[in-house]
Amino acid sequence: MIQQGKIVPGALVLSENEIIEKYKVSNTTARKTLHELEKAGWVTRIKGKGTFVRNNTVERPVTRIFGFTKNMIEAGRKPSTKLLGFHLRENDRVLNLNGRDYVLKGPYCEIERLRCADGIPMMKETRFISTQLCPGIQKRNLEQSLYSIFERHYNIQLVEIKQMLSSVHLEGEWMKNFECKQPIPAFRVEGVSFSGKNLIVEMEDSYYRGDMYRFSVSAVR
Amino acid sequence: MIQQGKIVPGALVLSENEIIEKYKVSNTTARKTLHELEKAGWVTRIKGKGTFVRNNTVERPVTRIFGFTKNMIEAGRKPSTKLLGFHLRENDRVLNLNGRDYVLKGPYCEIERLRCADGIPMMKETRFISTQLCPGIQKRNLEQSLYSIFERHYNIQLVEIKQMLSSVHLEGEWMKNFECKQPIPAFRVEGVSFSGKNLIVEMEDSYYRGDMYRFSVSAVR
Repeated sequence: MIQQGKIVPGALVLSENEIIEKYKVSNTTARKTLHELEKAGWVTRIKGKGTFVRNNTVERPVTRIFGFTKNMIEAGRKPSTKLLGFHLRENDRVLNLNGRDYVLKGPYCEIERLRCADGIPMMKETRFISTQLCPGIQKRNLEQSLYSIFERHYNIQLVEIKQMLSSVHLEGEWMKNFECKQPIPAFRVEGVSFSGKNLIVEMEDSYYRGDMYRFSVSAVR
Repeated sequence: MIQQGKIVPGALVLSENEIIEKYKVSNTTARKTLHELEKAGWVTRIKGKGTFVRNNTVERPVTRIFGFTKNMIEAGRKPSTKLLGFHLRENDRVLNLNGRDYVLKGPYCEIERLRCADGIPMMKETRFISTQLCPGIQKRNLEQSLYSIFERHYNIQLVEIKQMLSSVHLEGEWMKNFECKQPIPAFRVEGVSFSGKNLIVEMEDSYYRGDMYRFSVSAVR
């Protein structure tokens, strides 16, 4: 009911006693149910007040260079990162955006990470980072913010990220990544990051859960 | 195969004779098949050259106030608009973006339109237009660009549109709107349009086909 929007964020959900009465279940089952809802991030239990539906959607401004860590902290969530793996690649990597080809010169390091908020998987990202500009990056702690690694260890500041957003539907293997029981809509974000004039530091190919994210943007003349 | 990306844009597809041979069908069937693919917008037939897979994806810059008509013309497509209906509403309309409530003062006119490119449905939009600022707009030709109606008849120029993008999955009734045989991913775009300082002219709630659209945006510090 929460997932379908039938109970809205901020609403009080049934108490243990109400669950027991309404569904004719034991108090162990009722307690377990509420506990599972909380663990999955759907509700927050406030002692002495009750259990409330959480607003799970996070807003992300798309026109700001804005790391996941910072985005989550601003949204009042606890960010964490799980490294899924990395590979060193020798070839160049080409990305076409708006009809133009951008080239990340090899060698580069391909890093796959799962990013969570309050323990809930929110997005899966693949970053392709120039090892010419960031030598030895694979030996760093890759569960940290990569932006802060760029700045602290390589003295690199990103000045622009060109991005392309697609809307996709995730099923099968993807549901495992995100610990979902049903297929979910998602944003795919492909990007090229520049430091200084036309110097490509990295590329990105990320999937943001559509049930967890909304992208805000302002258009002008 | 085209839909799944197994044959890429620009590639030559089988000729009538090759279809007849490969699939053991009549020449009527082969011709009809190619004709249907063309009608659905998947391929372009160039006389004496063959049948080629079209690039169906349109890119839309999200940070520019950029009407559908203009967007399609720039992409080399022929735009058309089908009015689905309109209603006059008396109440105010509230939209929450980025945790802030925006109010469009009633009365307003709610206009539903299907927008096509080369006859293919690309997006369905609902516009909510202040009739205090645009009196009698429902009597205009609503299959035209509404931006040009604003400018020509009401001397209104939009200066900013605040937007929120979500990723959704369209099924059931929606597939009928878009003449699709399968559920499709889509972008939902909700927006508030301003003319001058804080004057809300209209709100919008649109669905862009995810298999037809990509949104481009640049992020900076």
